[in-house]
Amino acid sequence: MRGFNIDQFEKRTSKAQQLMQHHGLDALLLTTETNVRYFTGFLTRFWESPTRPWYLIIPSKGKPIAVIPSIGKALMSKTWVEDIRTWPSPDLKDDGISLLSDTLEEIAKNKNIGIPSGTETYVRMPQTDLKKLSQNVKLTSDFDIVKKLRMTKSNEEIDKIENACRIAEEAFRRVPEIAFENVNLDEVFRKFQVLCLEAGADWVPYLAGGADTEGYDDVISPAKVAPLKKRDILMLDTGLVWDGYFCDYDRNWSVGTPSKIVSDAYSRLLEASDAAFEVAKPGTTASDLFHAMNSILTQNSSGTDAGRLGHGVGMSLTEWPSLIPDDHTVLEQGMVLSLEPGITVRDKIIVHEENIEITETGARYLSLKAEKDLSVI
Amino acid sequence: MRGFNIDQFEKRTSKAQQLMQHHGLDALLLTTETNVRYFTGFLTRFWESPTRPWYLIIPSKGKPIAVIPSIGKALMSKTWVEDIRTWPSPDLKDDGISLLSDTLEEIAKNKNIGIPSGTETYVRMPQTDLKKLSQNVKLTSDFDIVKKLRMTKSNEEIDKIENACRIAEEAFRRVPEIAFENVNLDEVFRKFQVLCLEAGADWVPYLAGGADTEGYDDVISPAKVAPLKKRDILMLDTGLVWDGYFCDYDRNWSVGTPSKIVSDAYSRLLEASDAAFEVAKPGTTASDLFHAMNSILTQNSSGTDAGRLGHGVGMSLTEWPSLIPDDHTVLEQGMVLSLEPGITVRDKIIVHEENIEITETGARYLSLKAEKDLSVI
Repeated sequence: MRGFNIDQFEKRTSKAQQLMQHHGLDALLLTTETNVRYFTGFLTRFWESPTRPWYLIIPSKGKPIAVIPSIGKALMSKTWVEDIRTWPSPDLKDDGISLLSDTLEEIAKNKNIGIPSGTETYVRMPQTDLKKLSQNVKLTSDFDIVKKLRMTKSNEEIDKIENACRIAEEAFRRVPEIAFENVNLDEVFRKFQVLCLEAGADWVPYLAGGADTEGYDDVISPAKVAPLKKRDILMLDTGLVWDGYFCDYDRNWSVGTPSKIVSDAYSRLLEASDAAFEVAKPGTTASDLFHAMNSILTQNSSGTDAGRLGHGVGMSLTEWPSLIPDDHTVLEQGMVLSLEPGITVRDKIIVHEENIEITETGARYLSLKAEKDLSVI
Repeated sequence: MRGFNIDQFEKRTSKAQQLMQHHGLDALLLTTETNVRYFTGFLTRFWESPTRPWYLIIPSKGKPIAVIPSIGKALMSKTWVEDIRTWPSPDLKDDGISLLSDTLEEIAKNKNIGIPSGTETYVRMPQTDLKKLSQNVKLTSDFDIVKKLRMTKSNEEIDKIENACRIAEEAFRRVPEIAFENVNLDEVFRKFQVLCLEAGADWVPYLAGGADTEGYDDVISPAKVAPLKKRDILMLDTGLVWDGYFCDYDRNWSVGTPSKIVSDAYSRLLEASDAAFEVAKPGTTASDLFHAMNSILTQNSSGTDAGRLGHGVGMSLTEWPSLIPDDHTVLEQGMVLSLEPGITVRDKIIVHEENIEITETGARYLSLKAEKDLSVI
């Protein structure tokens, strides 16, 4: 099913309002695509345009209030939000800031208004406008309320992520049709996105990867116009979207039979993600998962520059928590994580990634767990 | 050619430094994908991950300084930037903010540091970190320096936009292969993205559109799972990317022969974009182009909720200027604009869009100008 029943938005809003009360907040002010969508269901690719600011207010009681450009009125009217205030944007003199300010004063005059301010957040509005606004209303942190809510997914959200994972699996399965010796890597990237769409992706906001002898230099470069060659390890890592939810996992292929050092390294990666999967359950921490993987990866090897070994996945390609030593987030049923161990082989790296859901008693793979031997193309 | 020769980045940096001197700024601090890439060539889809902040400093003299997560070091090392300072991100206690602060103090202690703060900007870093930073260094506006630079494109940039336009043209040409009566709109959207990739797009960050009887409700909704039917007007509007540059234009199709009211409305739209094209040249203003179109559109009709009739196109899907009455930006050779007139037909809208370049003496179509009659599928 596309979209959500209204009860999902009611629950999210009511949970936010409970936490707001606890922290002494009378409103939340949200400005980013994911946060606006989380409380409304407002799904559009129009956020790709950086021109217009969009505002959503969660009051202490009742439904969210949208303060948005008039171009979004028709679509927002199809959500459960009833109080939709619009202005013709862009307006160079006052791009919604008076309307926003008036609305906030109306519902939370001289009271605390929380904006997401911690890790992995930003405020999507011009600094000039943010300064103006902060002269009229009392802005403060949201005490990570939005992070807390979004980090634990409902079954309905997990269904969408699992569907995205299934679509990616079908695309990964077909990679041997498009990737083999002498095909240029940029062509593989282009065709892999086609496979994702053909398998049912709504869009493909993220594709990274690499291919080089026995590993790759990094995992964030765009594809080179260079042919796949014998002994290359090809990696494709996709964040494709279905109904607004991401999967985020990768697969590796060896062009021709891999050398022993590569197949050993690959086995080590799988052993690492298996180890994290084994300890993953409500009550263990993000840090525990890091250590479960890292203790295996650092046997006679060194880490990579990735900075972490996995992360949350959901409405964003990556979200809280981070699988790092210092993230002591306690895992809860409903969290969705990527396990993303990486390893250095000579001067190259190889990275493996799976997506899992934290269940009542343990974990469950949302990606179809990779086979234990590296696929050969 | 992919990428740019280093002289492009040297010119951009040196122009920024001249303007910085004029405005009494000793450094610029940049945080967003487009701005970091504009001065470095650092091109990656990794910005889709909201987790890590990325910082680029333009000092008063010399090359930009990158203060970035270690995961980006390999790719940034391939650019012309030499001073690359990294930290292992994410770090929950100090996600690069000390390193950034130290670097800024080193090059601009007690001096003014400009950050883009005006329309169509935001600061991509957590509020908590921005507050910490502003206690250590003097942050101020960038006086629209980055906007001024990016708004006028070099020939090398325009070549990339034109290539994106050509790729879109090829995809639009093939639409009758995928869109006809009884095909679901979501399927059309999915397959159109495939056509874009097959025509050579690197990726397709934006696709919007609509289809309904004699027009559509809005232009930002995701595709419905509903079949195309006789008398529908189908619109597809793509921002596809080639080598980091966007095109942004649309095409309309009529399912079966259009009614007179629709074909008249469509002619009016083309007349409007023609009128803007005629007046487009260095010295006229964004506002002039708006009025050229609006005077034609408002004859016996009313506008739409779009808020403007076109905009800049470049590294972003949409950028400055806006074709609105109040934007008096004087057009200059090298600007790239979308002309995007919209019209209301009964309770629906139809929108037409072209991309043009401002030349020395006038304008030139970058999109292959639409034929005067609505295409029938």
